Amino acid sequence: MAIPRAAYPAPFNTTRASHVVLRVKDLAASRAFYVDCFGFIVSDETKDTLYLRGIEEACHHSVVLQRMSGAPVCERVGMRVYTEEDLDRAKHFFEAAGLPAKFVEVPHQGRTLHVTDVIGTPLEFCATMDLKPRLVVEFKQHHGACPLRIDHFQIIAPDVPRACDFYSALGFRLSEYIAIDDTDELLFVFLQRKGNPHDIVFANGPGPRLHHAAFNIPDAAHILTACDIAGAHGFGNKLEFGPGRHGPAHALFAYFRDPNGHRIELFTTHYQMMDIENEPVRWNVSYLKNRPWGFPAQKSWFEEAMAFDGVAARPPVKPSHPMTLERFLVEQAP
Amino acid sequence: MAIPRAAYPAPFNTTRASHVVLRVKDLAASRAFYVDCFGFIVSDETKDTLYLRGIEEACHHSVVLQRMSGAPVCERVGMRVYTEEDLDRAKHFFEAAGLPAKFVEVPHQGRTLHVTDVIGTPLEFCATMDLKPRLVVEFKQHHGACPLRIDHFQIIAPDVPRACDFYSALGFRLSEYIAIDDTDELLFVFLQRKGNPHDIVFANGPGPRLHHAAFNIPDAAHILTACDIAGAHGFGNKLEFGPGRHGPAHALFAYFRDPNGHRIELFTTHYQMMDIENEPVRWNVSYLKNRPWGFPAQKSWFEEAMAFDGVAARPPVKPSHPMTLERFLVEQAP
Amino acid sequence: MAIPRAAYPAPFNTTRASHVVLRVKDLAASRAFYVDCFGFIVSDETKDTLYLRGIEEACHHSVVLQRMSGAPVCERVGMRVYTEEDLDRAKHFFEAAGLPAKFVEVPHQGRTLHVTDVIGTPLEFCATMDLKPRLVVEFKQHHGACPLRIDHFQIIAPDVPRACDFYSALGFRLSEYIAIDDTDELLFVFLQRKGNPHDIVFANGPGPRLHHAAFNIPDAAHILTACDIAGAHGFGNKLEFGPGRHGPAHALFAYFRDPNGHRIELFTTHYQMMDIENEPVRWNVSYLKNRPWGFPAQKSWFEEAMAFDGVAARPPVKPSHPMTLERFLVEQAP
Amino acid sequence: MAIPRAAYPAPFNTTRASHVVLRVKDLAASRAFYVDCFGFIVSDETKDTLYLRGIEEACHHSVVLQRMSGAPVCERVGMRVYTEEDLDRAKHFFEAAGLPAKFVEVPHQGRTLHVTDVIGTPLEFCATMDLKPRLVVEFKQHHGACPLRIDHFQIIAPDVPRACDFYSALGFRLSEYIAIDDTDELLFVFLQRKGNPHDIVFANGPGPRLHHAAFNIPDAAHILTACDIAGAHGFGNKLEFGPGRHGPAHALFAYFRDPNGHRIELFTTHYQMMDIENEPVRWNVSYLKNRPWGFPAQKSWFEEAMAFDGVAARPPVKPSHPMTLERFLVEQAP
Repeated sequence: MAIPRAAYPAPFNTTRASHVVLRVKDLAASRAFYVDCFGFIVSDETKDTLYLRGIEEACHHSVVLQRMSGAPVCERVGMRVYTEEDLDRAKHFFEAAGLPAKFVEVPHQGRTLHVTDVIGTPLEFCATMDLKPRLVVEFKQHHGACPLRIDHFQIIAPDVPRACDFYSALGFRLSEYIAIDDTDELLFVFLQRKGNPHDIVFANGPGPRLHHAAFNIPDAAHILTACDIAGAHGFGNKLEFGPGRHGPAHALFAYFRDPNGHRIELFTTHYQMMDIENEPVRWNVSYLKNRPWGFPAQKSWFEEAMAFDGVAARPPVKPSHPMTLERFLVEQAP
Repeated sequence: MAIPRAAYPAPFNTTRASHVVLRVKDLAASRAFYVDCFGFIVSDETKDTLYLRGIEEACHHSVVLQRMSGAPVCERVGMRVYTEEDLDRAKHFFEAAGLPAKFVEVPHQGRTLHVTDVIGTPLEFCATMDLKPRLVVEFKQHHGACPLRIDHFQIIAPDVPRACDFYSALGFRLSEYIAIDDTDELLFVFLQRKGNPHDIVFANGPGPRLHHAAFNIPDAAHILTACDIAGAHGFGNKLEFGPGRHGPAHALFAYFRDPNGHRIELFTTHYQMMDIENEPVRWNVSYLKNRPWGFPAQKSWFEEAMAFDGVAARPPVKPSHPMTLERFLVEQAP
Repeated sequence: MAIPRAAYPAPFNTTRASHVVLRVKDLAASRAFYVDCFGFIVSDETKDTLYLRGIEEACHHSVVLQRMSGAPVCERVGMRVYTEEDLDRAKHFFEAAGLPAKFVEVPHQGRTLHVTDVIGTPLEFCATMDLKPRLVVEFKQHHGACPLRIDHFQIIAPDVPRACDFYSALGFRLSEYIAIDDTDELLFVFLQRKGNPHDIVFANGPGPRLHHAAFNIPDAAHILTACDIAGAHGFGNKLEFGPGRHGPAHALFAYFRDPNGHRIELFTTHYQMMDIENEPVRWNVSYLKNRPWGFPAQKSWFEEAMAFDGVAARPPVKPSHPMTLERFLVEQAP
Repeated sequence: MAIPRAAYPAPFNTTRASHVVLRVKDLAASRAFYVDCFGFIVSDETKDTLYLRGIEEACHHSVVLQRMSGAPVCERVGMRVYTEEDLDRAKHFFEAAGLPAKFVEVPHQGRTLHVTDVIGTPLEFCATMDLKPRLVVEFKQHHGACPLRIDHFQIIAPDVPRACDFYSALGFRLSEYIAIDDTDELLFVFLQRKGNPHDIVFANGPGPRLHHAAFNIPDAAHILTACDIAGAHGFGNKLEFGPGRHGPAHALFAYFRDPNGHRIELFTTHYQMMDIENEPVRWNVSYLKNRPWGFPAQKSWFEEAMAFDGVAARPPVKPSHPMTLERFLVEQAP
């Protein structure tokens, strides 16, 4: 396996993970979870849509929740490009690759490009959004877990190497990856544009499906605050994994399922990666049963993910056999 | 069941949980765990004994580790009384109750009284110890989890109500307890002298055996630091339960097994309980499967405990069937 | 100077600093400060009185704010005794000392004894209060600085040695003190009953006057949160001293003046002091200009304090010349 | 005044503030301060040079300390560009502007370009450095303030608008600025390339001189830890300003003078600024006497700064009359 290099200069300038659009059955439950409990800020609200942002975000939204009938799905994940010209270049790039790309109107966003990536993930790019006040020092409006900003998405991908190659061609850098021990078979790839470990992660499994969207919180203590406040709001049983410490990217984390089944990660900020000499960091998958501390994730964390709207999940090229908590407890028993 | 009242005035003035004396096979491993990893302070050290204290303790030791051949055991748990006269009164009290009591010489402690409580737990009382500097603001000497001080012991008891009655007669107040739902059958009792929730806890099971000794750490973030530093020192797999939030007494906690099998709890400080009008708080055992957040403890946490030297464990009056992590995962599976 | 010994057994069993009764002109401003900004819990409210407690307190109140015309004053400071019998013994003790003592009715408190101490400080003792829920894990109700509980009072005293002798005779232990370098002249005495450094502090100056009441907050980070939230609520200019680290008692602190001029200290919890062998810790007053870090307090912190209702302040036996920030900046200038 | 726009695309791709080269008389004192006290990591050490990095940095150094005779000075500040081609473009840019630019050999750095900016600041650019391990989860090696990484420099500039124009032409974005009330006269400009508020700051005054280099620490509590550990190592009197909360950029901060007189800022991480629609945030200078909380900085913080080697400071185009602590205390006195 050759670890791919990020195209430089990139064919167009993607700056960062931007937002996620989620369909839900119960919007009131979403509000109770994201806003009342965890402290996301409501930027706008219509009868059927809730636009949320983190306390330091000046952009209009990083989470869009849309009430729809039918099973909850992820509509698409959103990325920012820097300029309008980058949008045009992006359209050209996707079309040249034989992938769908069209401009659409999206409320509170500038000109928006809908595309589908090489493994079928629905994405959108925009260069601008409506502006909202940064509330990072508006302490009266801070509560719950004090989510600061969106950081990244994790996608369950049926063909991780193919996704890795494609995003590398878009200019994403591989910061870390997990491979099967003694092989070059990629199971997880952490790809980034904004200078920290990841904007988008692909993990091996039936997909494409959205595994989670991740949000920064201020510090380690807020990981525990997030759990406590979840318990206080009746969402304690939505804590699916954590508190724990990641190997790749190193952050402290807690994963929650929202009342509609979407998964979010709350995690502490992590390192800067901006220099050309930084090689991707390799992890062997066996670390998952030898974590520095803490149990592996339960089975649901590995297996459950959210379908993208209208996109059928395909089985992975490589079957995976993760070290789940359930399996771990059996294997460690005397 | 009548919840017993603390004798007032107490027959003698016990002030607080003081220290624990543990026998170990591998003293170097103990040192690596308590001192190098977690940051306990070495007050004194001989070829076969290590005397440790927390960073704010001015007393000589709160943990004594003694190298001995044979399986690790707990030698005894120690309590402080306020004056020498209290020791004499204590001796009288235990003798009047038909329980063993004799004065012994113990290094670094004043006159020390060895007794056995009504369920067979070996205890010692002393009024004074050698003095050592408080290091609470000697920041150069702080590292690891920064253990502040010993707080309490938990004893697995074959007859929790009997232990509760006995310690109440000694002047201990019941601050919280866990009972079987819809009954008055006590499973856990939290008893205290020093004005916070517990100096000694009795939990139903085969005993008497020492479940754990508990130490305060400075704040919530140190719970996660404790896990991280344990991982860094190769003790990450000694994290048996947590990080989590207790129901009774409300603290954040992490339980570790030391390299000789003894269990310690690191936890955040908790509330003050000094007023006569405070009634004991009741919890139903069913809360253990409906914790505000976090999984139940794994089986080993419920079942494993350290024998007291020379004391055979007796089966409990009431068998218990705890909600272990293993059972919980099976019962919650779809 | 002989450092006085705490009477043991005490003539009556004082357990802890309990509450402070403050008169205010603007009760709405008090509410904005204590409740909306800092997060005190309202236990009860009448047209002219606000009863507050910390988030872990099960007692009805630790702060009572009474609207009255006239300049704000402190009505009295309150201590808890353990039993009703202790109240009778207290009455006897004060009467035998030729000091005022009478039982009064106080809302939400059991039988209450009004007394005046030897330097003229108006005190009240009670054994019980109405009960309120402990909110220590009611995370929805936590905000601001999350004040946990009252810890101690500081009184400006015209004769510190006399106050120290008197409270020692009541059974208070001297935990730390500040003396003039190379002398035994006491400037500050830290006296306690509850097993941590202080329930009541006397500092040299014109008095008796109330310098401050102090409240525990959860951890170091909350010191900074307190400042930030004060700024957000327009009370940032009420931060009079801090954030800083104390010498005696070692806590991190921030002092604020409330909108009626009363001063509170928010500080982190500190060490346990329960053993008979612990001698009082001596500090020389010169440390005030050589603090481990941080500037000295500004002049107002040293000079301003709240009169007790109807009690004229007397000049101190020893004049003091504190190292104020103003003086420090002049003396350190090149 | 027209607020300048960042050139886009930039003439060459500067990625971030990289390192600072400081000359010192007492290298052992520097080591005691940066390494033993605050926890910087030693990457390399020769008889006369100490190379330091933060715990998350994979680059060889962010601080270089060189023992030299003569008064301490700053040799130069360093920036990273992304590729070797960017270095060539940078050389061309500076030469075209009539400014000095030459390639030099620097240990542990790739090809390095020495330049002088338009106000006389000596800079160096490089595209690569030797690699060192990231220690962000090597918890055994964390101590003191746990400095994570370098973030930015502040330069005292005799002509702030001219510096602002020049760096804007280099592609730096203006994130925030301080202007004289009711005017467009710039006093402070915060300029950035890496997507957070600043890589380089220019503040009005006699210069060019280095005011400080700033380093991220993990969280709010570490601000207080930094002060405490400084006190423990005898550097408490080197705390010049703080702990406090900034207006522009919003971080919590503490400024220390090192034993050779260089100034560093330790501060918490701050917000992400990557979107084209974000306009620079304006502050009026009058906020400096109306900070949300905390005193203004003392005079030395405003007036003292480190000369660049061989560069004479010029008086500022606009004289400034800052609100110092000394002036504030006089003006607020009754």
